[in-house]
Parts: sequence; structure tokens; C-alpha cells
Amino acid sequence: MRDFASDNSAPALPEALEAIAAANTGHVVSYGADPVTARLAERVREHFGAGAVGFPVFNGTAANVVGLRAMLRPWQGVVCAESAHLNVDEGGAPEAMAGIKLLTVPTPDGKLATELVERRMTRIGDEHVVQPGVVSITQSTELGTLYTVEEMAALADYAHARGMLLHVDGSRLANAAAALGVGLGELTAGVGADVVSFGGTKVGLLAAELVVILDPSLSDAMPYLRKQSMQLASKMRFVSAQLEVLLTGDLWRRAASHANAMARRLADAVAGHVTITHAVEANSVFAILSPEATAELQQEFHFYVWDEHTGEVRWMCAWDTAEADVDAFAAAIVRVASS
Amino acid sequence: MRDFASDNSAPALPEALEAIAAANTGHVVSYGADPVTARLAERVREHFGAGAVGFPVFNGTAANVVGLRAMLRPWQGVVCAESAHLNVDEGGAPEAMAGIKLLTVPTPDGKLATELVERRMTRIGDEHVVQPGVVSITQSTELGTLYTVEEMAALADYAHARGMLLHVDGSRLANAAAALGVGLGELTAGVGADVVSFGGTKVGLLAAELVVILDPSLSDAMPYLRKQSMQLASKMRFVSAQLEVLLTGDLWRRAASHANAMARRLADAVAGHVTITHAVEANSVFAILSPEATAELQQEFHFYVWDEHTGEVRWMCAWDTAEADVDAFAAAIVRVASS
Amino acid sequence: MRDFASDNSAPALPEALEAIAAANTGHVVSYGADPVTARLAERVREHFGAGAVGFPVFNGTAANVVGLRAMLRPWQGVVCAESAHLNVDEGGAPEAMAGIKLLTVPTPDGKLATELVERRMTRIGDEHVVQPGVVSITQSTELGTLYTVEEMAALADYAHARGMLLHVDGSRLANAAAALGVGLGELTAGVGADVVSFGGTKVGLLAAELVVILDPSLSDAMPYLRKQSMQLASKMRFVSAQLEVLLTGDLWRRAASHANAMARRLADAVAGHVTITHAVEANSVFAILSPEATAELQQEFHFYVWDEHTGEVRWMCAWDTAEADVDAFAAAIVRVASS
Amino acid sequence: MRDFASDNSAPALPEALEAIAAANTGHVVSYGADPVTARLAERVREHFGAGAVGFPVFNGTAANVVGLRAMLRPWQGVVCAESAHLNVDEGGAPEAMAGIKLLTVPTPDGKLATELVERRMTRIGDEHVVQPGVVSITQSTELGTLYTVEEMAALADYAHARGMLLHVDGSRLANAAAALGVGLGELTAGVGADVVSFGGTKVGLLAAELVVILDPSLSDAMPYLRKQSMQLASKMRFVSAQLEVLLTGDLWRRAASHANAMARRLADAVAGHVTITHAVEANSVFAILSPEATAELQQEFHFYVWDEHTGEVRWMCAWDTAEADVDAFAAAIVRVASS
Repeated sequence: MRDFASDNSAPALPEALEAIAAANTGHVVSYGADPVTARLAERVREHFGAGAVGFPVFNGTAANVVGLRAMLRPWQGVVCAESAHLNVDEGGAPEAMAGIKLLTVPTPDGKLATELVERRMTRIGDEHVVQPGVVSITQSTELGTLYTVEEMAALADYAHARGMLLHVDGSRLANAAAALGVGLGELTAGVGADVVSFGGTKVGLLAAELVVILDPSLSDAMPYLRKQSMQLASKMRFVSAQLEVLLTGDLWRRAASHANAMARRLADAVAGHVTITHAVEANSVFAILSPEATAELQQEFHFYVWDEHTGEVRWMCAWDTAEADVDAFAAAIVRVASS
Repeated sequence: MRDFASDNSAPALPEALEAIAAANTGHVVSYGADPVTARLAERVREHFGAGAVGFPVFNGTAANVVGLRAMLRPWQGVVCAESAHLNVDEGGAPEAMAGIKLLTVPTPDGKLATELVERRMTRIGDEHVVQPGVVSITQSTELGTLYTVEEMAALADYAHARGMLLHVDGSRLANAAAALGVGLGELTAGVGADVVSFGGTKVGLLAAELVVILDPSLSDAMPYLRKQSMQLASKMRFVSAQLEVLLTGDLWRRAASHANAMARRLADAVAGHVTITHAVEANSVFAILSPEATAELQQEFHFYVWDEHTGEVRWMCAWDTAEADVDAFAAAIVRVASS
Repeated sequence: MRDFASDNSAPALPEALEAIAAANTGHVVSYGADPVTARLAERVREHFGAGAVGFPVFNGTAANVVGLRAMLRPWQGVVCAESAHLNVDEGGAPEAMAGIKLLTVPTPDGKLATELVERRMTRIGDEHVVQPGVVSITQSTELGTLYTVEEMAALADYAHARGMLLHVDGSRLANAAAALGVGLGELTAGVGADVVSFGGTKVGLLAAELVVILDPSLSDAMPYLRKQSMQLASKMRFVSAQLEVLLTGDLWRRAASHANAMARRLADAVAGHVTITHAVEANSVFAILSPEATAELQQEFHFYVWDEHTGEVRWMCAWDTAEADVDAFAAAIVRVASS
Repeated sequence: MRDFASDNSAPALPEALEAIAAANTGHVVSYGADPVTARLAERVREHFGAGAVGFPVFNGTAANVVGLRAMLRPWQGVVCAESAHLNVDEGGAPEAMAGIKLLTVPTPDGKLATELVERRMTRIGDEHVVQPGVVSITQSTELGTLYTVEEMAALADYAHARGMLLHVDGSRLANAAAALGVGLGELTAGVGADVVSFGGTKVGLLAAELVVILDPSLSDAMPYLRKQSMQLASKMRFVSAQLEVLLTGDLWRRAASHANAMARRLADAVAGHVTITHAVEANSVFAILSPEATAELQQEFHFYVWDEHTGEVRWMCAWDTAEADVDAFAAAIVRVASS
């Protein structure tokens, strides 16, 4: 069955498997003191800046939690959108694994803005209240929308002016950078971000995410926090190899651009037939369908209902989504929406 | 440089890479509802019994912590050997991630026994004291020694008779089962274990461990605990594929037996020249070297000093350790030990 | 300076000090196996029902956290009002001390209702999402409003029908029961609550709160959880003595009724001169003042601004608030509001 | 029944109740911004030095945990004696509430020494291992023994030279200072301690302990950590009043000296009749009794068996232990020991 449910449903890029195979020779020191991981460190500096240090971890939940652990004192919380993955889909990991309180803000489009963050800037210095310590934004957002470079910079400036740090959940950072036509560094170090969860899995790796530390004062803590957070790979070379190849040449951009283009193609094809609920800026399309239409469509295609109350559904495209798949799906959508 | 430092220094079994490649076709549902993971579930039942349920995770620290979270109430602790990986090498994950107190017992050989556990069975019912809830043993142990089937069963019976559960850290369970000439099920469900961390990485996978739940009352909690503990792989098929192939045919036994045999070969070759400090029962050899001998040897071979005070060193063999490597290493050891 | 800032600003009831003095004779067993605590247990059964078991703790934050720890599995969260003390004023203790995620709901008046709870009843059984395990309501609420007995019962029924439990943050339960003209048991066991934080301090004790367990299956865990949560008093008799006297005769009702009456008197005196923002049902009055009026009034009277954006202020009355204090304060309010 | 079980079995000093009564007048700001707490701050500076800041909390478990939370990063642990209260009697609060791993060391007499701490100074900088961050000693120890001023200073110097901090669990610091004939400051700031749990309850208060911060860089975190750790008293004046009176004049010394003298009197009276197992340096006596002698004695006197295996018992004296009580108890001991 063709799948528009998640970019996680897609297979891995052939390049990722080839990189793993290439790394599978002989004995190397475990836990990261290996040549592959050393090469990855160079790629990280190329993309994210000379001061950037990357720490591979296994998945996105972990990238977020480990990064935030490095950024926060125990009484500080994270200002984030109510719809943030951190708040909705991490199974309570921020709270249970790191004791972190999320200071959520409702947003219309999944995007924070300084005036929205401002609402949580109350009772500063009051020991009864978790103090805002980090602003966390998702780029691209859970709703497939994008922050501009300027919007990110404004949030970073706002945070820094108040002694806070900026965290970027970049589970789909590649999609955002590709869509905006900028580099990964422009979208992170360039805007003043302090810590970034750079996602590899959704864009085409098997299982590899990278915590990128841009504030050098936070690096020393990371090896301990990663290990303690159960995210230190013993055979690190195999995680690093995936990330290395993704950051070599323009693989990350090619994979992400294709997924973005397929979402665009899908949105264009169904526009006028269904209500599209969010700007289609990265690799997802949100639309409203009747329950009957959804049910009929799900017999042939796999996708998720996003909001049971409104009938909103989410369609995700991946690095391997074919034009023909999109066209067949769009045709089916138009058909069920019209009947 | 030839490596006797860790079985984690070894590459991955070619079969593991082939299994990953075979799984890399088309879209499947993420997070475990895929055909590869379904096939793994069958292999788990074959090996560990009809009631066994396996939950793949990324690494051994996580397998231990997630499994123990399912076994314990907040005021219960884990009786384990002072030398247990859980106590020494998990970066404080049991305490920091799960709030677990370890009730450690010094052991001569890394092995618990009922009379050693008994020492921690004090002040039962006293709210001031963390109550023993789980006995955790490592098979094979950090010191390369083995529990017999009878010894394991005695510990399980002891625990169950006191309302406790038995946890097996089986990071090297394959080595133990191969050495004892028994199946994985005989060594776990067969002895009455309740939860097992079955290790795949050290025996030849890239990054895949399995929490095997043998006490069915603990299964329901596992999906939530695994996700919350940051161990749910989105593209689960790639983790499952590794474990599936390891549990298919006798791959696990072949890989483990070879590593064990190489340790035996090494021990036999150096016996009489150096003092071997622990029974060589699995895939490691512990011996005493002078600091000078160690330094000289480390110029050519990579291995770790285990105890700086005594000069004890650890030599590990892996699935790919060659007889020629062992022989060259043994010759070098004999040479430096004699000089 | 006269104080309408908090019922915590008030002194202790003379009866509480007398009870402490009376308990201060000779040696008794520490940690709760003393005669005073035994008598308290009888009072608890009288008020809360034959199956009720009370566990004294030091403060309200702890009563809530320890009680909730007994009610929740690690992946379950607490549905509560966004304005709940638990969410706003506990310094992140639920998250940091107990790993609990709060599933908050905006409310107009600080009160949950089944249709509000319903909004958080999504993705049940989905391991990615913290599962609702407890509904927590505050009686009287942070906004000085009350749940009727019927409203509480409806929430309890709703929770139980879905396998959840009902927690009552009764930091001001005495005020609620006094205002509703019912007993403490009618408002807790009577409505089907499972665990109650019964507040002693705000109504007139020095420092004593009581976790009342009404669901007998939760009692066994409590001694361990209380100790581990750093809430076990060694000289328990002095905490128990305060709670015993409060629950003896009608002391709790007299103290709470007086505070309620003073809030009513204040509200009546200023009605028409200022906008009162919430129904005055217990011992607090919320009103809107201009920043200038607030500033002028605070030169003579101590009280807090509740919402800096709207100018809302909170005035609390306590067991010792005198009619003359209220009248003087009301006159000053009328004066500044009119100028 | 006369009680030699615990100094917690004793009542409160009359001065403590008088101080509470004196504080019970009118309204004051809650949570510590009151005149009594201000006066306590002065007493703290008098006793512990001009830079000392005290944070009252409810009990000793909390004093230890809150203080240690201020001293540690998440990957650092606490080197302490295996017999430390922290390890044995806190119900797992360090682990469960603060994620702290205790790096325990067996000791013959409950006392650490630099050479014992040295044993835990291994694998520094290794991310797999919890790093020693704090040395925690108990003064007087759980075994009734004392550190000399020089021994404490040596441990502080040792810790500081390695980037660690010194924590003093001073649950019975008054007994130690009284026995050594020094001031509280000499025994804490004077030796280079960084954080001290100063105990009030065991020496005669109702429920009041004080976290004394001597390293000024740790003060800012404390208000937040105390609140989050559920230890912020709303009616703080009543906790502060107890500590204030204890630190006024020589009340703490009188109370502690008396308890010490009674232990001395008891030890002297039974010497030669029973084996006393630890030096009697503060307010406890440890001795060996046969099970029969213990059973007979416990029919008349309340005390605890310390070690079921050896028959060791503990006898504690308190501020109110009368000479006649000691003499009667000693006579009974001599009688049962001789029979």
C-alpha cells in the first residue's frame, strides 16, 4: 500500500547503506574515537560552523531531550508551541527523563513568535514558578510550515536578551533549509541558535540524529549527558557513517527537496477540491476530509487523521515518494472529495 | 592495530548488513508495525518461549534501564554485583533516568549467589530503606565468568520466593549460551528469569538489543516505557532485521562460539607465562601484567587496563577475531611477560 | 500592615499551638508510631470514612506530588486546569520530582468539567502520548470558585468510567466544605474521590497537610513514597497534633467559615465600585483595579496582582481577618476606585 | 517506656515552643520574607560566617538532597561512607528525587578519609562512569564517632584540589561541635566545607533543619531547588523561629552537650559488662548483646538492634535524657549481660 503517513515509513537512502557497508571493515575504537566519527566532525564544522560540535544519537526524542538537558538548570523550563513534538509526541520523555516542564503556547500555525513567547515571560525570579530558560522551535514545524531566517533570528535575539537560549528541533531541518534555499548553517548558527537537533532519519537515514552544539560552553557536558541518557552507541561508526554521507555533497538537500516538491505537487493537484489547512512549505500537506472520504481513501493509501474533531488529515512525502504515487493519490483524493 | 579491547570494536556480521539491505524496500508502517518486526516476534517466541515478547532497543544501557523500569515500583531497588555494568558503566543512567537505587554486593568473580543476595535482604518493610525488588545478574559476567543453569535457577527461585523478580543482563548472553551448550531459552525462561536484556551488538550486530519480557504481566507497560525512555526506533524494521537474522539458524551461536574459542586459545597460549585472574569461560581473558609489559604490548595491540592498582588487564575476543591474530598476540604477551 | 495577600500570611490558630504543647511530653516512637498519630487516624476515619487513611506531610506541594505518585504509572499524566496550583505554582515539582506530565486545559473559572477533560482524552493507547491517568481538581479553586457536590461526582464518575482516578487538591477543602455546608467526607469520599490533599496550613495550622487515601489499593505504597519524597517527619507527633485538633469538634469549619464570611463581606462592600471577576464562593475576591489604584492601595495593604495584563488583583481572607480590617480595606478600595 | 531508641523520640525543647508562640502574632509575608527569618539570617552569619546563607527545610533527608542538588551536575556523584544515612536511610530519595548516584566506600568506623575517597577517584573524565563531584561526610557519624577539625579540613582540601566540593551531613552537628568544644563555624566554614545540613530536630526542635550554603556561588540556585524539592514552608516564620532560638545564646550547645554527657555516662556505667563497638564520642553508644539479653531489655526500654547478624545494638541519648534514666538503663544492661 502506498504510504503518505510518515516520512518514517520510507526506506533508507541507498547511500546510507553504502556508507554503513564502507564503514564495516576491521576493528576501530568503540564509542566514537573512530575515523568515521572524526570525518563526521569535519562535516559538522563545514555545515554548522567552525565552533560546532556534533553528538550523534539514535532518535529524535533523544536528540531533543539530551540537547535540552545540556541547556537547562533544574528549575528552568522550555517555552514551546503547544503543538510541538516535544509536547505532544515524546511520550513524556522531557518530563520523566529530564524533569523538564514545558511552558506551552497555543499557536495558529505551529510557529512561535516573540509576542507569543512573551506570554510565558511572567513572574521572572519567582521561586514558585518554573523559569523560562530555553525557547524551542521546530523547523520545519509539525504543521509543515516554516520560519523565515529573520523570524528565527528574532527569536534568538529575544531569547538571548533575556538570558535564555534558543533550541531548534530540526527533525526536518533539511526540508526547511531546502525549501528556504539556504544552508544548514545559515538556518542555525547563522540565526543565533544555541543547540540544534538535526534530523537524519526522516530525510533518509536508518536511525541517526545529531545534537549540534553551537554554544561552546555547553559542549563539555554533552558526552556525559548522552551516555547517561542511554544514547551512546558502542559501534558509533555505523551511526556516524550515515550522518557523514548525508552531510557530504548535497545528499541532504537532494533528498529533502524531492520530498518538498512532492508535497507541493500533491497540494497543487488537490487544491480546489479539498480545503488545505496550512501553508504547504515543506514536505507535508494538511487538509480537511469528511470521515467517509477518509475511510474510503485509507482503503488504498496509508495516512493519518490529525484531528478527529475537525477531520483534518496529514499527508507526508518522503525522499522516495514517486511522482506517479502522488498523482495516483491526488486523483483518488479528488475522486472521494467530489463524491 | 589488532584489537583485543572490546567486542564492540569489531565490525558487524555481513549477515546483519544483508538483512538490513533486504529490509530496505518500499514503505512500511513505522514504530514496529512492520513485517520484519512481526517475523522477529516469531523468532523471539521460538527461542525464548511462547509467552516471550521482545522489544528492540538501541543499546545495552537502555535494554537494562527500560527492562528494570518495567519491573520496579519507585521504592524498590536492584540487588546486583558491585562489578555489574549497571553499577559501573552506565553513566548513572539507572539513577538519573529511572530513579533506581542499586543495592550492590561485592563478589569475588562477578557472580551473585543466594547467600550474597541475602546480605541485602534487611529491613524488609521498613519505609526508610529501599526495598529489594529485583535481583540482576549478568550472564556472562563482566569478568568473563559464567553462571551454570542451576545457579541461575537457584537465584530465580530465591527471588520469587521473596516476591522479587530476576533480571538477566544478557549483553553477552549468546556467549554464555554457546559456552554452556544450551539454548537461549534454557538460559532464561528455562531458569525462571522474568526479564532479559539480550545483546546483539557485541556478538556482531550494528546496534540492536532486545528486552525480552518473560513475565507476561510486565508486557503492557513496555511500549510506553520504551518510548518514554527514548528507545523507540521510528524505522524499526532496521533494528528488527538485525535481531531477526541473529536469531535465525544458528548465527548467534556460531558468532559467539567463535569468540569464546578465540579467548580459550589465547588463554591456553599464555598460561604459565602470565597469571590469569578469572576462569576463562566466555570471550574474555583477564590477566596480570607489569605496567612495563602492558605499555610495550599496547604499542602493537589495543586493549584496556582493568584495574590500575593490580595491573590487571582485559583481553576480549570477538566474532571476527582470527586465529592468526590470537597467535600473534599470544606470542607478544609471552615475549613481554618473559622479559 | 494589614494583609489580604494570602491565607498563608495569617498566624496559626491558638488551638494548634496548644495541641503541639500538649503533645510535647515524654518520649514516643518517631516517624508516626505514636499515640497522637493514632488518634489522628481515628479523626480521619470519622471525617473521610472508615476506609480512609491519612498520611501527614509538610506542605501542599508535597501533598499533591506524593498523592499523585501513588496514583500514576510512569507514562500517565494528570488532566488539570491550566490555572491549577499544580501547574502554575509548584516550581516544577510534579515534573522534576515525579516525572509527571500535566495535561492542562484552559478554563474560564478554574473549574474542570467533563467536556473540558474530554479534550485531553485523545490517542488513548498510543505509546507516543502521555496517557490521561488522573483528573485533578482544586476545591475551592485558585480563583475562589467552588465545585458543587454534583459536579465533583460527575468528574469522578467520568474518570472511573475511563479507568482514571480523581485527585482533589484540597489545599482549601475546609473553605469549600464550609461554604457548601457539607462535611469533608461528603465532599471527598462521598463524591467518589480517590486521593485528597487536605490542607491544614491555610486554614490555620503552622505546617501540616494530609494526604487522604480513599482508594484502599493505593495505601500500601504511601509510606515508601512519603519517605522517598522527603516528607516523613521524624517527630511526627507535632504534625499530627495540628491535624488532630483541626479535625476535632468543628474547628476546621469555624476557621474556614470565618474566612469565607470575610471575603463575602469584602465583596459586598466593594460591589458596584470595582469589577469583581469571579464568583466569590470561598475566601478570596478577585477584582480589576487600575495600576494607579493598585499602587495607592498597596501602600497601606498587602495584596498581590494576579494578572499584570488585565490589572486583576486577588484579595484573600483568613481565619483571623477581622471585620474592622475588611471594612477599612473596603473603604480604601472604594476610595481609590472612585478617584 | 524509657526510650534510648532515637534522639527523635525526645520531645521538643521548651524554648522551641516558646519561640513559635512568640512568632505567632499578626500577619507577615509568607515563604520567608518575614522578620523572624530575617533574624535567623543574622544568627546564621554569626555562627557560620559572614558569607553563609541558610535555607530552612523540614527534615534531614530534604536538607541533604536539596543541598546536594545545588552542588552537583547530573553526571556527578557523591562519595560517601557505605553506612551514611544518605545511603542507608533516605528511602532512595537521592536517587529517585535527584537522580544522584552514591559512590559508597566501606569504612570501619563510619568515617571517610582521603585514602578511602581515593578509591572512588577512578576513570576521571570517562563518560561511562559517574564522576565524583562531592565528598559527603556525616558529623557526628551514624556510628557516634567524630571527625577532628583536622580530618575534616584534610577532606575539604582533598576535594577542592580535585575540583570537588565538601558536603557535611550535620544532622547531629551540634553534638559534634559540643563534643569537640568548637563552634559551628569552626567545624564547617572553618574547615572549608561548602554546604552543610545543620540539624535542628534531633537536638531538640520540632521539625526544622537548615541547609547552610558556604560556597556563595551555590546560593542563587537554592530558592528554586528548595521550592521544587517541596521544602518551602508557606508559614516560614514557624520553622525559622525554631532555628533562631537554637542558634541564640548557647541553646544548641547546652542541649547537645547534655545528650553527649548522658551517652558517656551510659558507656562508662556498662563498660566491662558489654563490648562497646565504637568510640563513644557523641550521643550514641553501640554495643554487642546476645539476642536473649536484647529481648529481655526491650521489655522495659525501647532501643533498636543495629546489626541482626552481630547482635550490635544502638542506644541514643537526647537533650532530655535524665541521669536517673541512664542509671536505671545501665543497671538493667549490666543485669541482663551478666545473666
